[in-house]
Amino acid sequence: MSDSTTAPLPAAVRWQGGSLGHLVLLDQTRLPLEVTFLSVFDIETLFEAIRALRVRGAPAIGIAAAYGICLGLQPLFAPALGANRVQSDNGQPDSAVFFERLEQVRSYLAASRPTAVNLFWALDRMVARARQLSARSEPSAIFESLFAEACAIHREDVATCRAIGRHGAELLPDGASVLTHCNAGGLATAEYGTALSIFFTAQDQGKRLHVFVDETRPLLQGARLTAWELMQRGLDATLICDSMAGQVMREGRVQGVFTGADRIAANGDAANKIGTYSLAVLARAHRVPFYVAAPRSTFDFNLPDGSQIPIELRDAEEVAEIRGQRVAPVGMRVYNPAFDVTPAEWITGIITEYGVIQPVTADQ
Amino acid sequence: MSDSTTAPLPAAVRWQGGSLGHLVLLDQTRLPLEVTFLSVFDIETLFEAIRALRVRGAPAIGIAAAYGICLGLQPLFAPALGANRVQSDNGQPDSAVFFERLEQVRSYLAASRPTAVNLFWALDRMVARARQLSARSEPSAIFESLFAEACAIHREDVATCRAIGRHGAELLPDGASVLTHCNAGGLATAEYGTALSIFFTAQDQGKRLHVFVDETRPLLQGARLTAWELMQRGLDATLICDSMAGQVMREGRVQGVFTGADRIAANGDAANKIGTYSLAVLARAHRVPFYVAAPRSTFDFNLPDGSQIPIELRDAEEVAEIRGQRVAPVGMRVYNPAFDVTPAEWITGIITEYGVIQPVTADQ
Repeated sequence: MSDSTTAPLPAAVRWQGGSLGHLVLLDQTRLPLEVTFLSVFDIETLFEAIRALRVRGAPAIGIAAAYGICLGLQPLFAPALGANRVQSDNGQPDSAVFFERLEQVRSYLAASRPTAVNLFWALDRMVARARQLSARSEPSAIFESLFAEACAIHREDVATCRAIGRHGAELLPDGASVLTHCNAGGLATAEYGTALSIFFTAQDQGKRLHVFVDETRPLLQGARLTAWELMQRGLDATLICDSMAGQVMREGRVQGVFTGADRIAANGDAANKIGTYSLAVLARAHRVPFYVAAPRSTFDFNLPDGSQIPIELRDAEEVAEIRGQRVAPVGMRVYNPAFDVTPAEWITGIITEYGVIQPVTADQ
Repeated sequence: MSDSTTAPLPAAVRWQGGSLGHLVLLDQTRLPLEVTFLSVFDIETLFEAIRALRVRGAPAIGIAAAYGICLGLQPLFAPALGANRVQSDNGQPDSAVFFERLEQVRSYLAASRPTAVNLFWALDRMVARARQLSARSEPSAIFESLFAEACAIHREDVATCRAIGRHGAELLPDGASVLTHCNAGGLATAEYGTALSIFFTAQDQGKRLHVFVDETRPLLQGARLTAWELMQRGLDATLICDSMAGQVMREGRVQGVFTGADRIAANGDAANKIGTYSLAVLARAHRVPFYVAAPRSTFDFNLPDGSQIPIELRDAEEVAEIRGQRVAPVGMRVYNPAFDVTPAEWITGIITEYGVIQPVTADQ
């Protein structure tokens, strides 16, 4: 898969070798000061990488988790890779053992982060593929098919993001100035990103564009990742603190806000990085359109509305310390929700690979 | 003046000795990890301290600047304090020399920061006092009167903030939960603060209170100063990132927002730390009252509205680096306005030492 993307940026998620190969993640906690890679040979390392946000962004987590299923099943087929090989007489692991292990791996990886639905979507797609083949295939053939499925999920994300970019770029006139939050770029996906794909596509079309980047506290994905990605691709960009977005809108400096999403309920309510909801409120107050860019896999039609989207609460230290340096008094209490939910009525449109959903709700 | 306040916290601004004494500033750039003091013997050191935000907050800057006038005039009266002593035969500096120096010192200190009007208010009050006495007093007597005037400005701020606290506390029911931004506390004033004086007064009245504190990027006055001050005084407080305020309001966790101000135009438009305007917009969207607490000296009746308030643009490094550690890519462009202006129509009320101005404008 490492050759399947045309982006000049190093891939956030890459698979090295065949079905018995391993994952290579761009360690996003080290950006922008260091471009380092993490080789992942087992699901425990992957779990930690997802949890610690070394790999992040809803689509990228989904791709990594799909490959994670392969990593978790490898020990059944390659003795050197693990001690728990259980084979029947024909050299195959027993089918029951195979499916038991598949279920274990799925449950384990599903617990890494609660909000992004792409994680569950990818895991469920892998399990569904295995079940579909179970009647007629040996475990080793299912395993190979699962590896092909993970590669397909990866490959499809490239095309999906390109399609999002094409639909979204139609909303951007030449010379537009826009605002984005967190990182919904190549680092969050297989290649071009979701919200940032729109900007890259507009750039590819020869449009001039200026992008304001919210730094996105507490973990500074805007300052560290989006700023880096836009600079790498030569886009004209300006970094601001999250608290400056209202002032930037009031000064008439942006004509649109574009963010990604981690989960979208059936009614269009969208969970995304904390601060997104505030941007939507500010955008409406300034009559600036507010768009969410996300693939079909981000929709969770099991949830009628956003009130049931689980919101991950993360450690106090992410706020009280910045890059390892303490800023708040020791003992200070912290509230640190990682996401918020923007109600559908605040969203001008949702840009998917199939087109732009607009209006999102009849309430608009 | 060091004994004139009853606060258990170290004073942000203190004068040591008589008219030939010196300023002692609590170095706020080192809080909360270190409580260190800076002795200031000359106006160049004071200028740097104001510029670098070692002393900050509109009222505290005003007090420090008033004492700064004394520091700047001292060399005329105490040869050991400076080389430029110019005296007539009676041992007095010449009156023309005195007023020339007074004007120089005023202009120099006025250039330290552009937005907070209390700086200019205090400097102008000192100069006006000197001119009032010029016809009938010798320079040495005027100098002693100016020192008394600086002490009066300092002492009056204690009483002013207490009065703001009393008026504001009437707005807070027992058990209220509120939100504040930046630091409008004792560290920004002589003793109790402006917005925080309201909370301390409510606490003194036995009311239970919970305070959400915006960390206030880029310089983290909320995380470093307000969090420290509230903890020191035993208030129940929770730190959040600025981007979380909208979510906290949406969850119904606050019943009021209280901030300070650096300059208020004649029509009620209020300049305050960047991010305040966004809070006002978010507060209205959630039907949460938004109050500004500020003394009379923060009003600039020369300005009909906020559009003419000069907004200080500060260095890119304040955003691109946090506490000396680089977070954004090298070369990334930054927009860093230190303040924003909240239009009067977004402000529920302005709490002064004379009472609460509500409504602020007929447009509400």
